[in-house]
Amino acid sequence: MDSFKKLGREVRRFAEDRDWAQFHSPKNLSMALAVECAELMEHFQWLTENQSRRLGSQQKREVEMELADIQIYLIRLSQVLSLDLVEACNRKLPENAKKYPVGKARGVAKKYTDLG
Amino acid sequence: MDSFKKLGREVRRFAEDRDWAQFHSPKNLSMALAVECAELMEHFQWLTENQSRRLGSQQKREVEMELADIQIYLIRLSQVLSLDLVEACNRKLPENAKKYPVGKARGVAKKYTDLG
Amino acid sequence: MDSFKKLGREVRRFAEDRDWAQFHSPKNLSMALAVECAELMEHFQWLTENQSRRLGSQQKREVEMELADIQIYLIRLSQVLSLDLVEACNRKLPENAKKYPVGKARGVAKKYTDLG
Amino acid sequence: MDSFKKLGREVRRFAEDRDWAQFHSPKNLSMALAVECAELMEHFQWLTENQSRRLGSQQKREVEMELADIQIYLIRLSQVLSLDLVEACNRKLPENAKKYPVGKARGVAKKYTDLG
Repeated sequence: MDSFKKLGREVRRFAEDRDWAQFHSPKNLSMALAVECAELMEHFQWLTENQSRRLGSQQKREVEMELADIQIYLIRLSQVLSLDLVEACNRKLPENAKKYPVGKARGVAKKYTDLG
Repeated sequence: MDSFKKLGREVRRFAEDRDWAQFHSPKNLSMALAVECAELMEHFQWLTENQSRRLGSQQKREVEMELADIQIYLIRLSQVLSLDLVEACNRKLPENAKKYPVGKARGVAKKYTDLG
Repeated sequence: MDSFKKLGREVRRFAEDRDWAQFHSPKNLSMALAVECAELMEHFQWLTENQSRRLGSQQKREVEMELADIQIYLIRLSQVLSLDLVEACNRKLPENAKKYPVGKARGVAKKYTDLG
Repeated sequence: MDSFKKLGREVRRFAEDRDWAQFHSPKNLSMALAVECAELMEHFQWLTENQSRRLGSQQKREVEMELADIQIYLIRLSQVLSLDLVEACNRKLPENAKKYPVGKARGVAKKYTDLG
């Protein structure tokens, strides 16, 4: 079994051991996910972009743990919705590639609706 | 190579093909991640918890694509920070287990700082 | 001078006293605003809707202080953009009324793009 | 009556005319507020801080309308919680001043817990 699937099993067990399925509606999990993303952003809100590229080791460790919490909630949300995250990405990437064709999007940071 | 690592390669290539590394500071990616999470929440904001558990097939497909975008940005953020997401989760889960011991957290939806 | 304008003056002075204009770019303030909103959501994420309507006095006090922080950042953001919040709302409400005509939107919680 | 109170009356009437109190639980409104903040952030996510300070007139108009939606939801949330926003800010500002004393916080963008 690959390491991402193994992680999924552990995330499921974590919730089951605590009898948390009752709280884990997609609605609630989407809120929890957004809260974790904001905790991540809090690290960066007053940094310049360049500072955010050169975190000290302590802050990098904290940021790493925020990324982990986001990943864990995202896996959990995919479980309660019976969705496969990797498959979903494999379907979404080609859609994104159509929205952002290399010829138009190269070196440009605009929303696809604003690409010329 | 497992499917999650393969996905990571494609996410990296997607950004490289478009010369987007210049825009992909951790600061900016944390914003993009939060924006995607909000697009996910938008699906659920006026639903009851029960409705969010029983999505119609059209809405479920849309939600799946939001989860994919969140996963893609999360992978991308881990790349620009040179972090391994699965490893990070494997380090975080035991920390979460300490914060939420089964004996105290079972059937309880409180923040760890409020567990009796 | 009305109380909302007076509040605006105090918010401005707070930032000036600390020489914070240098950090208060619209980009950064939009992040700070989102972070405060997430701190608010954290209070509600595991509550049922009904529980969120009947907060205890301690939690209500905490929620009140989160609302205040959101309002303060929103005022500050309007200042650095030289926008008048009340005027902006007075222009937006009629737009919202067109998107959500009473006849179609009454008792219905759908996005305007999905109103029949 | 001052213009902010008048705005509050119109926000209340807007919801009443559409019979939306049933959907306007604090939980749901906190989600709606976060979604609006993310729509605001979307304007800034790929801009540099300097670019975010010099918006074109079209984008500034769009940003203004996002600020308005945030303000409207914030007022609405204060209504369903029976809270006075201006009063809340007037209580919160002195708390913030204690957390960020001028002597320590001047010219420094750190969280109060990290001020030396």
